[in-house]
Amino acid sequence: MTSEVGVRAARAVDGDRLWERHEQLRAIGALGATGVSREAFTQEDFEARGLVCSWAAERGFPVHVDGIGNLFIRRPGQEDALAPIVTGSHLDTQPAAGAFDGAFGVLAAFEALEALDGASVPTRRPVEVAIWANEEGSRFQPTTMGSAVYVGALSLEEALASTDSAGISVRQALRQQDLSPLPPGRREFGVPFAAYVEAHIEQGPILERVDVPIGAVTAIQGLRWFTIRVTGQAAHAGTTPMGARRDAVAASVAMIHELSRAMTDTEDRVRFTVGRFEVSPNSPNTIPSTVVFTVDFRHPDASALARLGDQVAPICMANTCGCTVSVSETMNAAPTILDAAITETIRDTARALALDCVDIVSGATHDAKQMALACPTGMIFIPCREGISHSVLEHAERHQMLAGARVLTGAVATLASDPAGPGPLPPSSPPLQGRSKDTDDQDY
Amino acid sequence: MTSEVGVRAARAVDGDRLWERHEQLRAIGALGATGVSREAFTQEDFEARGLVCSWAAERGFPVHVDGIGNLFIRRPGQEDALAPIVTGSHLDTQPAAGAFDGAFGVLAAFEALEALDGASVPTRRPVEVAIWANEEGSRFQPTTMGSAVYVGALSLEEALASTDSAGISVRQALRQQDLSPLPPGRREFGVPFAAYVEAHIEQGPILERVDVPIGAVTAIQGLRWFTIRVTGQAAHAGTTPMGARRDAVAASVAMIHELSRAMTDTEDRVRFTVGRFEVSPNSPNTIPSTVVFTVDFRHPDASALARLGDQVAPICMANTCGCTVSVSETMNAAPTILDAAITETIRDTARALALDCVDIVSGATHDAKQMALACPTGMIFIPCREGISHSVLEHAERHQMLAGARVLTGAVATLASDPAGPGPLPPSSPPLQGRSKDTDDQDY
Repeated sequence: MTSEVGVRAARAVDGDRLWERHEQLRAIGALGATGVSREAFTQEDFEARGLVCSWAAERGFPVHVDGIGNLFIRRPGQEDALAPIVTGSHLDTQPAAGAFDGAFGVLAAFEALEALDGASVPTRRPVEVAIWANEEGSRFQPTTMGSAVYVGALSLEEALASTDSAGISVRQALRQQDLSPLPPGRREFGVPFAAYVEAHIEQGPILERVDVPIGAVTAIQGLRWFTIRVTGQAAHAGTTPMGARRDAVAASVAMIHELSRAMTDTEDRVRFTVGRFEVSPNSPNTIPSTVVFTVDFRHPDASALARLGDQVAPICMANTCGCTVSVSETMNAAPTILDAAITETIRDTARALALDCVDIVSGATHDAKQMALACPTGMIFIPCREGISHSVLEHAERHQMLAGARVLTGAVATLASDPAGPGPLPPSSPPLQGRSKDTDDQDY
Repeated sequence: MTSEVGVRAARAVDGDRLWERHEQLRAIGALGATGVSREAFTQEDFEARGLVCSWAAERGFPVHVDGIGNLFIRRPGQEDALAPIVTGSHLDTQPAAGAFDGAFGVLAAFEALEALDGASVPTRRPVEVAIWANEEGSRFQPTTMGSAVYVGALSLEEALASTDSAGISVRQALRQQDLSPLPPGRREFGVPFAAYVEAHIEQGPILERVDVPIGAVTAIQGLRWFTIRVTGQAAHAGTTPMGARRDAVAASVAMIHELSRAMTDTEDRVRFTVGRFEVSPNSPNTIPSTVVFTVDFRHPDASALARLGDQVAPICMANTCGCTVSVSETMNAAPTILDAAITETIRDTARALALDCVDIVSGATHDAKQMALACPTGMIFIPCREGISHSVLEHAERHQMLAGARVLTGAVATLASDPAGPGPLPPSSPPLQGRSKDTDDQDY
């Protein structure tokens, strides 16, 4: 159900202002003509966060910051002691990234505050923009650090002790934080939210392919990572009969072939990737002695994630071709089912605004995955060109950003105006488990 | 047929002398307790060649050297103007090698001369020991350089111009050659041989597995090398549906799986190896954009080498999984069928000496492959432990070396005493074609 105030606020979203601010943000850490480099807790990251704080100051919205650097920009509600409806995303980027991942969600969230003010729409609950610290995890691991600490899935001490490749800790980096012109107030961790809604580019090709402007995200898929080490014996490729070989590449190919067959589904919900494959001694005329390869397996359904993921080790063990094999699971993160009522509000809002909308599963992880541990949570996706993300080629059109900001604004206004409001959600999804410390790309 | 003089000469082979000389040679370039490092045209190589020349001087056997450094030690025949029966191998090694590859063939050949003298067996034809220069090709490419120049398969100019990683040319390295105490005579290239017989460790596990001391080598298998480049598109492992992927690893696995099926034979004559497999960007959660892998395919039968090898490109092209694929053939060397009459003489000699003997195909290339272009050629294999070669773990037992030297001596004595002698062989095998210049391991 979309409230009348939701539609009114959504129509007050200003596409010119949204695009103008997008351009201003993109200039901070600009990389070439289209890219951005703005890793977490760098001067560029602080500058970008300061810019949004300056927009808040212009509007008189108070800003709060917590101990890991998450920012909260607040528009008061009529019943201001109620838990807020929160929307937001992050401003940090991968080292060579685009201007949309994270930034769009912050811009759309701030535009929701602007539109509520511009349309003179009061809301029963306060509405807050959250700017989560260090979502990307490229400089400091783990990913979604700020939101994870906020909900208690990661300890503050562990987060502050994380160091970058130069040995600088989060604790040290945070001391450089300058969010002038506004000295923000302090916020404790874990202050309850009534609901959380995040807008984001899809980072995949589905919405573009079906030519639909809005995705109502029903779930963030679960993820299991495996590292498989296959040990055979190096020998001469010319003199060793096939039957006498222990060929680590031959065994690995047999394993991956069978894994691919097992992972085939008719609904195209499985995601199965062998992204790393390293051979030793890697010489054309030597039978390979060792292969190490990775499996990245994702599924939105917890039972399928368990059932198919549990087949990885047995399938590898059944295709050793005389080699010895070890399979270690380096990560196991359960799927997150987003709140059905919020997803329905997103669909209704799109319908009220005459925007096509399809249900979609998020392939990547977002701050919303952490927030879903603590409150009813929803996500809105907009298309991005060719599904490309984490690249200077990342792109979304102005009209696509506008449509997404409108749906977000309408949904937030509706949720904040609901006389009953969403009830509290008992935490159902466990925090990310077994996060590997030695992976070189922490953006899952 | 084995002549009576063949058996008499074979019985004169001295196992103690053979092993003593093996130990003397191993000390030159010794690497640890069992290994040898004696690359071509190094001081160690020259010193090893000089040691054998000193044994020749003690016996009064004249020594000749040609323009690429091949050495020929001669025991005259009764009809000394006839073309000689030649036996030999090489003394250079891989950088971290064993004491048997090449050296055993030279020691057994020199022992044949000693045994003929010791048993006072005159031969109709002269018998020569050839020490071929730079068989390994690890320092200066290509492999089998000396024998290839001798038979005209490689030009002397090209060989002399070959440089090592320090920029030193073969021409420069040869100037350091010191074969004292004997100033050798000069030998022209291409002086005809009546026959060539080479003894060698198998460098594979077959003789050890069947527990037979002598292999009568019927052929040196042919070899085709391919490099396959698969180009897909990098994308996020979490957000990209399986149907929208162009996954270079998935395509490569499909290709190798089908290639392996196509290369399966019931006779175990095919040798099929994917030794190199390189992935980019090689990150667990990124769909791979490129894979480059190699195929090393060998077969003793020319028609099978052509028929199966010609399937490599079509099979790759039929399993692209949406990627683009290029297949380039980097080497195509025809099989060498060794001389049937000489192989029969080897079998007969083993039988006459009460040594078990099986037919075997050589998986590796040897100087005999070059010699087969110019004269009737045979090879004798002895077992080596676990088939290991090009390793400090390479090992053959003293009694295995003795058996091989006896069969070689008997066969050489028989061939050199044959009143008719082997006829000339028209060159039937083409020289090695398309030898790749950019491979980092030249020992095929």
